[in-house]
Amino acid sequence: MEVVTKIVQLKSIVSRVKGEGKTIGLVPTMGYLHEGHLTLAKEARKENDFVVMSIFVNPTQFGPNEDFLSYPRDLERDKRLAESASVDVIFAPSVEEMYPTNGGISIHAGRQSEILCGASRPGHFDGVLQVVTKLFHLAEPNRAYFGQKDAQQVAIVQTLVRDYNFPLEIRTVPIVREEDGLAKSSRNVYLSKLEREEARAIYEALQIAKETFLSSYHVKMALDEAKAYILSKTTGEIDYLELLSYPDLQPVTEDTKQFLLATAVYIGKTRLIDNIIFSIEGETANV
Amino acid sequence: MEVVTKIVQLKSIVSRVKGEGKTIGLVPTMGYLHEGHLTLAKEARKENDFVVMSIFVNPTQFGPNEDFLSYPRDLERDKRLAESASVDVIFAPSVEEMYPTNGGISIHAGRQSEILCGASRPGHFDGVLQVVTKLFHLAEPNRAYFGQKDAQQVAIVQTLVRDYNFPLEIRTVPIVREEDGLAKSSRNVYLSKLEREEARAIYEALQIAKETFLSSYHVKMALDEAKAYILSKTTGEIDYLELLSYPDLQPVTEDTKQFLLATAVYIGKTRLIDNIIFSIEGETANV
Repeated sequence: MEVVTKIVQLKSIVSRVKGEGKTIGLVPTMGYLHEGHLTLAKEARKENDFVVMSIFVNPTQFGPNEDFLSYPRDLERDKRLAESASVDVIFAPSVEEMYPTNGGISIHAGRQSEILCGASRPGHFDGVLQVVTKLFHLAEPNRAYFGQKDAQQVAIVQTLVRDYNFPLEIRTVPIVREEDGLAKSSRNVYLSKLEREEARAIYEALQIAKETFLSSYHVKMALDEAKAYILSKTTGEIDYLELLSYPDLQPVTEDTKQFLLATAVYIGKTRLIDNIIFSIEGETANV
Repeated sequence: MEVVTKIVQLKSIVSRVKGEGKTIGLVPTMGYLHEGHLTLAKEARKENDFVVMSIFVNPTQFGPNEDFLSYPRDLERDKRLAESASVDVIFAPSVEEMYPTNGGISIHAGRQSEILCGASRPGHFDGVLQVVTKLFHLAEPNRAYFGQKDAQQVAIVQTLVRDYNFPLEIRTVPIVREEDGLAKSSRNVYLSKLEREEARAIYEALQIAKETFLSSYHVKMALDEAKAYILSKTTGEIDYLELLSYPDLQPVTEDTKQFLLATAVYIGKTRLIDNIIFSIEGETANV
């Protein structure tokens, strides 16, 4: 496995690999890898000849009061884990390498970004689209891998690829969970022991909402039950808990076939997100 | 030469050509081809194994009061001319083919678009960046060809490619002129005989401004002389006539090495643009 930090190095590798007629899978990450990332890498490994993993904590997707500076970083550990998942090259650029110039052109995520996580993180998805566009152009992947955990991100990136004709396919991989159901996240390390125990209630609440909805088709009742459950089991604060159509992220109607049930909860100071994507027939394994 | 109207057809051709290890040159046009376009195509022909010309009158770069509907179109004539320039494939999609969906993601050209032509055409360069991004992803060119005539467009597209790492090179080709100096344009057909005679004053005025500036280094004096010349020789109205640094399009300072002298003039109802790019050492043949 090779680790490169310069764009010119990555482009030279990509050019060689494509010249050999090989397919490329890209796994964009912000590092501090956990099993979720490794599942993405393994899926990329299965479906492509060559796997590029980017490790870049992208400042443009963090708000001024968010955790850009304190976001956990450990490149040495990431290297070992990526190697174990048979990644071919890690691209780990500096902020200066990724953003040396700024002519003022910007990408705006629009209405899909004004709800769910976007509502409390203005500009977040604009930053995601900026870095994803750059990474797609740099790694020229045939397929790019995203976790279902960030369901809104996947929906918006899929919209970017569709509406701007990027020559690649977005592949999503189901959420990887701890034994008690908590979705794996780099931010879980922030939780105290007590907070960690409380955090299991998030996924439990989503299950309750889903079951209530599927037996009643009553959106508000389902969401209210789940919210009450979180508030009874944790000291946390609910940012949102919503049921929307997927992947267009619009209000549920009688015609909705696929659903996104998504939540963000502050447990202490740590913001945790989780979601279930399901159809009327039941939970979907992949989207 | 092949003519395709569907994205799936173009992608299949591009995939085959790239699979053969060939390079692709893209010439994006709005059709109604003139010698300027053919010069771009010939340049593309020289530098690439395969030449794609797109012919698409892009609605998103026209303002509500602009000439989208009356913009001249003649695909049969364009085919003959493109064939004579040894274009390999024409991509001539419908508006519905290019914009079947809209998830609300937008690209904004920013400060470079708020001056010159952009000042009187709000949203124009956003539309240019939208269609250019799509065409770059569809044709996957190694090089894309633009005329220097639209100098602001070239500067903004070059900024897009640089800041978003598109894997291609922008090539510019000098303005092709009529015998009396008028820059060739699809819109010249709108001019009456008298207007056509007046229109030669535009390029003459740019020459005057350049000579005055190079002998005095006095921006305002140079521009005033040129404006007075246009007003004395035509019944037209000057939209703008400006001298800026190139390619960043900022006010001229003592450090400026490359200059863009650009103008837009209404002759009757027809808006004509022209420019000269030059350095202190003299006019540059290419940028």
